Amino acid sequence: MGWTRTTTQVLHRGPFVTLHRDDVVRPDGSPGVYEHVAVDDGVRIVALNGAGDVVLVEDDFYLPQRRMIHLPGGGTDGQDPHTAALRELEEETGLIADTLRPLGILDPLPSTTKARTHLFLATGLRPGRQARESTEVGMTVLRWPLGEAVEAVRASQITEATSVAALLLAHLAADPDA
Amino acid sequence: MGWTRTTTQVLHRGPFVTLHRDDVVRPDGSPGVYEHVAVDDGVRIVALNGAGDVVLVEDDFYLPQRRMIHLPGGGTDGQDPHTAALRELEEETGLIADTLRPLGILDPLPSTTKARTHLFLATGLRPGRQARESTEVGMTVLRWPLGEAVEAVRASQITEATSVAALLLAHLAADPDA
Repeated sequence: MGWTRTTTQVLHRGPFVTLHRDDVVRPDGSPGVYEHVAVDDGVRIVALNGAGDVVLVEDDFYLPQRRMIHLPGGGTDGQDPHTAALRELEEETGLIADTLRPLGILDPLPSTTKARTHLFLATGLRPGRQARESTEVGMTVLRWPLGEAVEAVRASQITEATSVAALLLAHLAADPDA
Repeated sequence: MGWTRTTTQVLHRGPFVTLHRDDVVRPDGSPGVYEHVAVDDGVRIVALNGAGDVVLVEDDFYLPQRRMIHLPGGGTDGQDPHTAALRELEEETGLIADTLRPLGILDPLPSTTKARTHLFLATGLRPGRQARESTEVGMTVLRWPLGEAVEAVRASQITEATSVAALLLAHLAADPDA
């Protein structure tokens, strides 16, 4: 039977977060209230060069109050995920990808938001017109062998969930017998 | 320099979601507004039996409006993550784990919430006192060889990001040369 929605209202509409409250009927038949947030869908890109290095970025995150290493990516900002991925890759790393293939779709926090994150594998990398490393203030671009990025995941140096999943998926794809 | 917070206010405090709005100074020095949500920290458990099967659960998710296969887990509900993991494992699968080891910590959506998800590897599984499969309405318990679960991840049949990351981490741990 699953869940059904009786009514829905917007409690707050902000520039990045919209908060909804729905009246629902739970799977057990009881009435309930379900609050959830709408945020932009996301993209994350595993960009691999010919030497097998992956491009990572490091920047300041407000909520954890620390620098985090993660894959290039961000919100789709109303674009289709493929277009958004190419845009984010160039904005954050200065790179254009000749080939962009889907690597999967994730639900980062499906009890709280419908927002999904689209993963891509980018190859055929070349410098973009911007001819710089990053347009983001304080962002550092890193190039690590994919195996070292996987070790950083295992050591909890990379903790952003969609980057973790995408790096491990790319590692599996690079060695299907793994 | 990073981000700094000037003021903070609670826009809404609900049973599961609290919405905050902070006035901030961005890394480039400009003033801004940052809205974010507080939700419970989470736990996810990779429970492996002696045959190398992993325990998964399937249930109805409200927001995606579909059944999702994921690892046992849920909110910490104020408990320390280790205690919460043992509780969630027994509630959802009827199993007690003699050994519970940390497998990592993830940030599922760090631009939107500080909430973290704690991953564990559970072994030494035996039936709990509850002697049933699950206390959750409509939840189905599955036992799959770990390799099949990894294939389900690669086929996007499992998309909940922390389950994806934890299954791939457990797969790597089971075969460190992979």
